[in-house]
Amino acid sequence: MKNFTYVNTTKIIFGKDTENLVGEEIKSFGGKKVLFHYGGGSIKKSGLYERIIKSLKDSHIDYIELGGVQPNPRLSLVRSGVELCKKHNIDFILAVGGGSVIDSAKAIGIGAVYDGDVWDFFSGKATINTTIPVGVILTIPAAGSEASTGTVITNEYGWYKWSVNSVIIRPKFAILNPELTYTLPAYQIACGASDMVAHVFERYFTNESGVDFTDELCEATIRSIMRSVKMVLNNPTDYEARANLMWEGTLAHNGILGTGRIEDWASHKIEHELSAIYDIAHGAGLAIIFPHWMEYVYKHDIYRFARFSHRIFNVDVDFFNLEATVLEGIKRLKKFYQEIGLPTKLRDVNIGNERLKEMAEKATINGPIGGFVKLTTDDVYNIYKMALE
Amino acid sequence: MKNFTYVNTTKIIFGKDTENLVGEEIKSFGGKKVLFHYGGGSIKKSGLYERIIKSLKDSHIDYIELGGVQPNPRLSLVRSGVELCKKHNIDFILAVGGGSVIDSAKAIGIGAVYDGDVWDFFSGKATINTTIPVGVILTIPAAGSEASTGTVITNEYGWYKWSVNSVIIRPKFAILNPELTYTLPAYQIACGASDMVAHVFERYFTNESGVDFTDELCEATIRSIMRSVKMVLNNPTDYEARANLMWEGTLAHNGILGTGRIEDWASHKIEHELSAIYDIAHGAGLAIIFPHWMEYVYKHDIYRFARFSHRIFNVDVDFFNLEATVLEGIKRLKKFYQEIGLPTKLRDVNIGNERLKEMAEKATINGPIGGFVKLTTDDVYNIYKMALE
Repeated sequence: MKNFTYVNTTKIIFGKDTENLVGEEIKSFGGKKVLFHYGGGSIKKSGLYERIIKSLKDSHIDYIELGGVQPNPRLSLVRSGVELCKKHNIDFILAVGGGSVIDSAKAIGIGAVYDGDVWDFFSGKATINTTIPVGVILTIPAAGSEASTGTVITNEYGWYKWSVNSVIIRPKFAILNPELTYTLPAYQIACGASDMVAHVFERYFTNESGVDFTDELCEATIRSIMRSVKMVLNNPTDYEARANLMWEGTLAHNGILGTGRIEDWASHKIEHELSAIYDIAHGAGLAIIFPHWMEYVYKHDIYRFARFSHRIFNVDVDFFNLEATVLEGIKRLKKFYQEIGLPTKLRDVNIGNERLKEMAEKATINGPIGGFVKLTTDDVYNIYKMALE
Repeated sequence: MKNFTYVNTTKIIFGKDTENLVGEEIKSFGGKKVLFHYGGGSIKKSGLYERIIKSLKDSHIDYIELGGVQPNPRLSLVRSGVELCKKHNIDFILAVGGGSVIDSAKAIGIGAVYDGDVWDFFSGKATINTTIPVGVILTIPAAGSEASTGTVITNEYGWYKWSVNSVIIRPKFAILNPELTYTLPAYQIACGASDMVAHVFERYFTNESGVDFTDELCEATIRSIMRSVKMVLNNPTDYEARANLMWEGTLAHNGILGTGRIEDWASHKIEHELSAIYDIAHGAGLAIIFPHWMEYVYKHDIYRFARFSHRIFNVDVDFFNLEATVLEGIKRLKKFYQEIGLPTKLRDVNIGNERLKEMAEKATINGPIGGFVKLTTDDVYNIYKMALE
């Protein structure tokens, strides 16, 4: 087990009706003038918007709005948010939505207290020293951004999808009301669950030994996500299933499951190039990439993959043919994605081989990727090719 | 799943040599004049004492010392600590030891900023509003107090062992170096592991439904503790086993496993009366009480207990006789305690039936106890009697 430092300071407020506490929470964190940041407007249809406005007004909190965040959140809107914050002396940002809105809010937070261009943080030209604090009302359980240290932004001038990490941008609070997720389309639920299991996979596949405890926690979390998402899809008003799935999404990415481990994250980088260029859902891209990444790398540690097959999918261990055990696990993983309605091949989302080389090069622009198995440009290209059909 | 609020602000600094960071950490939390609080002096034999003093001096931190904390930490020493803090204008308390030292430090912290007697917080006469901040170097993985909101103090004037909880007393940081636990006697390791599994049991046995995810996490944690403690006892210099056990102890009690659940805590109260009067190790008392508590209450939810037997001890489920499945699980739990060298009957620690009635009355002094099954004085008395032999 590696040495590590761990703390997660995001205050989780979980359960029914908790969105009505948002004004109070912002006030308790010193917010007086808020940028209210959201996505495509579904919060207006659902009535959430009005409840938030009421809570802000009840707490005498002034606000301006910035909606319109898209999936794979765009740099251009972040820049608009930065301008707004500077112009209106915003002291708190409220993100209402899923990972895209939260990531956009985090980026605005650091951009608003910086003299240069906000992309400098993503390109490595600037380091995060401070931010306008961010609070969250989560409506899509998926990215885990509500309690994480990362933000991923898509620069549409060249379609770079890059990330930056710092404990400074971790949200102050996250309000998680499972009922707010009732109106999500099935496909978005499935994409969210795919993102969650991917967050655990990136931590689970490690070369670090002596991490049995976090191995067990990772396995418990993956099994739970897979169970919950099926329950939610079968019965969309099952509150308990919704609640489990939502809490699983946060814990999958709040850092605990990675303690003492060297994480991988190659598959995320490989996927980011897909969703940057083709604008597909991140969770769908991960469902396509992960099984093929596994097929490409499993020989690196056949024992860990055999354990994965056995512990996650209850595959009977063939001790005389561990490889068969591994491959059966990967097969069942693909089946899981298909059962929840996700693609598992690039052809499923109408992506051909035209830009695979370009994506492989962009994914490895800073050198080989992956903490578990180091992948070169050629490796990434091979994985894209395997994922074609 | 119940609504809940969760945050754990204790900064965990985990791994080899991390005790040398203590001066820096105290400084980062604003400490300038420290009460250095410890137990029986084993830290002097091990050399830890000198490393801490060096780190404090390197960071120009002034300190006074208060050693002598005993297991089942005493109110009298807490009062001495309170006096010292007031006299020397102490602004930070460093606890070096296990749960007893940390609990003592937490109590001193609240007593030192209060005009009345510190026992007022435990007897319910006063409420915690503020404290001198506490930091921890953990040397005994067990109580989880290093990242918890609780403190348990024994009032030797009447032998009351009472607890108080508040997020205000949660330590600012906890330094966890598994190597510092190498010199612990086997019995103390075993008692620590018993305390850890008990912390999870108290959360696992709940009437709340729809908590599948935390059920899985609880089970993963219990299995991991049981595996790690045996590895440590078999090979005391197995760093990885030590590291897993240490991190398990913290997560067993840092609050995550109880999110969304109503917890029980009857067994802890029943045990506290034992260790208050007979001064036995808390973990040993829990090994005696828990299996008998289970035998007394399992019919309340035979399905949960059958799951416990199956998931923790891999008991074959007899679907036509779930009771047999449950009893086999409880039998294996007793066997686990015995294998790690712990008592499972009061007679094992030379406790007879003389004071069982008195203890049952003290345990239920504020009414029936237990969030899973409510236990009256008679119930508690019956459990003590079952535990006799």
